[in-house]
Amino acid sequence: MRAAMRKKITFLLSFLIALPLLADEGMWLFNHPPRAALEQRYGFNPTQQWLDHLQKASVRFNSGGSASFVSKDGLVLTNHHVGLDCLAKLSTPKHDYVATGFHAKTRAEEVKCLDLEINVLMSIEDVTERVNAAVKSGMSAAEAQAARRGIMSTIEQESTEKSGLRSDVVTLYQGGQYHLYRYKKYTDVRLVFAPEVSAAFFGGDPDNFEYPRFDLDVCFFRAYENGKAVHPSDYLRWSTEGSKDGELVFVSGHPGRTTRLNTVTHLEWMRDVTYPQVLTLLRRREVLLRTYAERSPENDRRAHDDLFGIENSRKAYIGRIAGLQDPAIMNAKRQTEAALRAKIDADPQLKAQYGDAWDLVANAINTLRPIYGEFQWLEAGRAFNGTMFGHARELLRLAEESQKPNAQRLREYRQSGLESLKQELYSEAPTYSDLETIELADSLSNWMEIMGADNPLVKQAMAGKSPQERASELVRNSKMGDAAFRKSLGEGGKAAVDASHDPMLELARIVDPRSREVRTMYEQQVDEPLRQAYAKISNAVFKTSGGDQYPDATFTLRLSYGSVKGYEENGKHIPWATTVSGAIERSAEHKNQAPFDLPKSFLAKKETLSKDKTPYNFVFTADIIGGNSGSPVVNRANEFVGIVFDGNLQSLPWDYQFDDRQGRALAVHAKGIVDALHKVYAADDVVKELTGK
Amino acid sequence: MRAAMRKKITFLLSFLIALPLLADEGMWLFNHPPRAALEQRYGFNPTQQWLDHLQKASVRFNSGGSASFVSKDGLVLTNHHVGLDCLAKLSTPKHDYVATGFHAKTRAEEVKCLDLEINVLMSIEDVTERVNAAVKSGMSAAEAQAARRGIMSTIEQESTEKSGLRSDVVTLYQGGQYHLYRYKKYTDVRLVFAPEVSAAFFGGDPDNFEYPRFDLDVCFFRAYENGKAVHPSDYLRWSTEGSKDGELVFVSGHPGRTTRLNTVTHLEWMRDVTYPQVLTLLRRREVLLRTYAERSPENDRRAHDDLFGIENSRKAYIGRIAGLQDPAIMNAKRQTEAALRAKIDADPQLKAQYGDAWDLVANAINTLRPIYGEFQWLEAGRAFNGTMFGHARELLRLAEESQKPNAQRLREYRQSGLESLKQELYSEAPTYSDLETIELADSLSNWMEIMGADNPLVKQAMAGKSPQERASELVRNSKMGDAAFRKSLGEGGKAAVDASHDPMLELARIVDPRSREVRTMYEQQVDEPLRQAYAKISNAVFKTSGGDQYPDATFTLRLSYGSVKGYEENGKHIPWATTVSGAIERSAEHKNQAPFDLPKSFLAKKETLSKDKTPYNFVFTADIIGGNSGSPVVNRANEFVGIVFDGNLQSLPWDYQFDDRQGRALAVHAKGIVDALHKVYAADDVVKELTGK
Repeated sequence: MRAAMRKKITFLLSFLIALPLLADEGMWLFNHPPRAALEQRYGFNPTQQWLDHLQKASVRFNSGGSASFVSKDGLVLTNHHVGLDCLAKLSTPKHDYVATGFHAKTRAEEVKCLDLEINVLMSIEDVTERVNAAVKSGMSAAEAQAARRGIMSTIEQESTEKSGLRSDVVTLYQGGQYHLYRYKKYTDVRLVFAPEVSAAFFGGDPDNFEYPRFDLDVCFFRAYENGKAVHPSDYLRWSTEGSKDGELVFVSGHPGRTTRLNTVTHLEWMRDVTYPQVLTLLRRREVLLRTYAERSPENDRRAHDDLFGIENSRKAYIGRIAGLQDPAIMNAKRQTEAALRAKIDADPQLKAQYGDAWDLVANAINTLRPIYGEFQWLEAGRAFNGTMFGHARELLRLAEESQKPNAQRLREYRQSGLESLKQELYSEAPTYSDLETIELADSLSNWMEIMGADNPLVKQAMAGKSPQERASELVRNSKMGDAAFRKSLGEGGKAAVDASHDPMLELARIVDPRSREVRTMYEQQVDEPLRQAYAKISNAVFKTSGGDQYPDATFTLRLSYGSVKGYEENGKHIPWATTVSGAIERSAEHKNQAPFDLPKSFLAKKETLSKDKTPYNFVFTADIIGGNSGSPVVNRANEFVGIVFDGNLQSLPWDYQFDDRQGRALAVHAKGIVDALHKVYAADDVVKELTGK
Repeated sequence: MRAAMRKKITFLLSFLIALPLLADEGMWLFNHPPRAALEQRYGFNPTQQWLDHLQKASVRFNSGGSASFVSKDGLVLTNHHVGLDCLAKLSTPKHDYVATGFHAKTRAEEVKCLDLEINVLMSIEDVTERVNAAVKSGMSAAEAQAARRGIMSTIEQESTEKSGLRSDVVTLYQGGQYHLYRYKKYTDVRLVFAPEVSAAFFGGDPDNFEYPRFDLDVCFFRAYENGKAVHPSDYLRWSTEGSKDGELVFVSGHPGRTTRLNTVTHLEWMRDVTYPQVLTLLRRREVLLRTYAERSPENDRRAHDDLFGIENSRKAYIGRIAGLQDPAIMNAKRQTEAALRAKIDADPQLKAQYGDAWDLVANAINTLRPIYGEFQWLEAGRAFNGTMFGHARELLRLAEESQKPNAQRLREYRQSGLESLKQELYSEAPTYSDLETIELADSLSNWMEIMGADNPLVKQAMAGKSPQERASELVRNSKMGDAAFRKSLGEGGKAAVDASHDPMLELARIVDPRSREVRTMYEQQVDEPLRQAYAKISNAVFKTSGGDQYPDATFTLRLSYGSVKGYEENGKHIPWATTVSGAIERSAEHKNQAPFDLPKSFLAKKETLSKDKTPYNFVFTADIIGGNSGSPVVNRANEFVGIVFDGNLQSLPWDYQFDDRQGRALAVHAKGIVDALHKVYAADDVVKELTGK
């Protein structure tokens, strides 16, 4: 029950100040692993080879998640909810792979995802000095921003040309460091095996972020190159026994975003403005999509993936706000900040270098405040929900930006990233006009509510019509739902785009001048000053604290570690693992009603499964967050022992504060996976590829 | 599908300017019926006896709805969704009358509602002159407000003492007139028969406000006095055939609220501020309650009534905003207003009397703007969701207000209304601590988001705790869930309340001073000026337009009329009535999955029902709005031919603009009701009482 779970969070955070000094904290860089802590806490010192192997066996799903190579023939394992984007796009009313699952019994039956790109990190290079050197002292924020953007795009383009690899300059420590990440990328990724969503996401939204859990949240793909299955340089060996209670485990994955370095003022801004606004939007979209989905099974199918994402985010953000609204946690943050500032103020040199950083953050937020709304509605596109407007604007900007020198383009149109951008822009994924229409109408209506019906830009965009009428005519008359049309404009360049009067493109033309203005203000007056301020703060932390530091999450590869172990909750011990028999019991308690309904495949084996004591899901203390879904969990021997698929409710405040007294990462157990593949699905081909047996 | 339905609304409203002059418009006063229009359009002239009979056979449910006496033994018929409040409060996990329905086969089995009061309007007296005479020219708004409040309470108290009847001075034309309504009230109301919610609300939220429909939305109660069934002076005779296509019908019921007299500035305020805020709140509560309800069948039972109300309002408000955001409808409103103002400005005397009214409205709204938030969070109680805080504040204020002379009290504590207030305050309806806790925690969190965590009143109310912690301790330690405790404080008066340190009462003490301040500002600087302004506007309308005028809805008895007829939609004719066989078909299309699942009682008679061609639900053009649910529909002979239960989507903008080209009221057909009672439920005792057969 949510009420009860919330109480638990509160209870937990009230004692934050008494946090043990040594926790299994950190999302560490592979080029700066936590050697001291591992040695001290676990007597473990990974070799460079150990690290390289794990790094290169790890995979990023650009649709938003993590994964790993688990066979010599390029089998890739991720979560079902990470694969969902691909599954939903491949599905039709007749073949709903989300509902029914999928199993390619031969290579020939494997189905190619429509627009998926996956990445494997090949190397990291620290380019902080080069990036910072481009920003000369005395430059205005606007000049600094242009210089920094330029050098980043230049470094990336040089690297791409030299290495042939996808090259991204990643901002770490929110501006403290810049590293060049080079990825091998795969764009021919095929679906191999997926269970039914009712097995993968058993318990649905009510059980999401809860533990104990009983989810077979796995999905297998295979990477291809030149029409053939790849043989990756590194893949994880499957542990026959899987993880064990008490053992040290590692997570190698791509945590999306954390805000742990944020100043208190910045956290207050999130608590009071950004998170409440995000949640208001999420709730609105949830109600919109649920009422749409309820009208028919086909609507339900069309909306499933978006609705899952929205509900998942809604639950996560509620947990995050709950923490920020707890005086105990905010007071702890205030104390930590005050202690650091006291250290700096006590040293004249440190004070001169870093003392103004907190005011710089506050100033940047005050500058953001008046433009934040417009930034969200226009530049972030909240006013134009659905996929069609986004495509239109991307085509418009692609045409314009491609005319500029690489270093002067908006970041997302830099030369080195165009291939990936086009992979998505030309996607053959289906567009549903009815869904696009209600989404666009609702967001136009919302924009009108917030900016006012008499706002000149709103009026111009609405063209004298109601949001419903306008959305309906835009979707009906635009060809942005057609991949071939998008490709013809994208490849036709500026001339082709200029010649098109597609109504969605025309709408993008109306909105874009102001949207770009707001973006420029944001980049120059908010983003660049924040980078400079956080560079100071992170450097101050490095100089004043002895230990190693890890940067906030940035959807780049990180190494976490922790112990497999249960925890105490309301005076009760929650064991480290569940068994599949628990799913059978829980389903029976709920009379097999959704979202506690097990698929026929499970029900057919009910007798066997209800006696099964193999570990199914388990918990451990490693530091994870959204984006880590699908990350492999490995043991000291670098063997695959499980796959991360969630955190418990108590882990939600890890956004800004780690705490492993009750907070846990959740994973599906290696043995539980193999057992289900064999016993429930008779997918012995997959089992053999994983285990050799 | 919502998208499609919204398009229909838009299409409709675009042609508003071309509205036919003669529509079946109006929610008329029983002391000022639309004689001219009825005579002209239908050649019908009701006698005074005809009107008196219908008036006194009509019943108001104070929980929010309409009804009628339908037998000489005090049988009262309303909608299932109006009776739902009573059904839910009487239900337990073992006896869930909402899910399973109810049928008392003998009088002894009839179950008394826990806190229901129903009213029958006995007389109306125009007291406008007396009310206005109390407000002397030259009085400040504060003095005027006090004088008006005083005289209203005095008139009511005199009337109650003299007549022994519940006496309410009702504000009509938003301040143009004041009428004294005297009601006979019944507080011993017993449940007689209810179908299962899946029959009554077949199609659930997806089908709500849609047509064609297939709902048996009826519920029977019986009024008692002194332990015996009452024999009302008037009750409606049941029409054996029910309503017929094309015939003139009347609705006698209690429409809750409309805003048709509102100025354009006032409508813009609703469009831009109040309605969006209401919807944001509704969506938030919907998500909160749905996620709670999904966790278990018992949670679902506990939340059912609230969730229905929230979803119903959400859908209605979305339709209302859609209309206000349509330039066509707003331009039509602007033109009507400009025409009236031109007429007034053209006549120096009218101009001197009424010319400033629109500016007065605008000024009042500008005064409201800065205090609106606080008014909603504190005085309207949005910060303190759930029932317990409301009880605590009512006890606190009851103790304080009872000390004052009647004329000086807050309106809801006037002497003449205390009996009804205590009926609700001492209700034995169950309180669910888990539900109260999540509701209070969520609303405290929302308050903190909006007013800021550092707001002094927020800080004081939170007592250094997080919203979750605070809500949890308040609910756990307060006795406000206990009816006997509330009664002991309520009857113990100020001494008893002062002596209590119940934590919810303490919270009310923290909040109340500021809440009262804001309320006073609102009453003096917004409400009173609006009354004066709308008195001018409505008088200006009376003087400049020839025809009869009806006031906006005020949850008081009104007479509407119209024709039974279908309509055209997307080039298709929608017939006037559906049959029960349609429910069988629709359920089959959805594989009998909720909310398209019929109860076992219907499924058992599937064969018979699928051939049944009796009218089940039907549509007609009478002017209704929320609050009319449960209103009897009668024919020229004053016979009961159906019961209003909804309007279609196209009727949602009737809030501010009537239009009967596609807009329709929906009713359950008299013959359909009797047929279902007999064929599905074998409730022949009820049928006999209704029809004599």
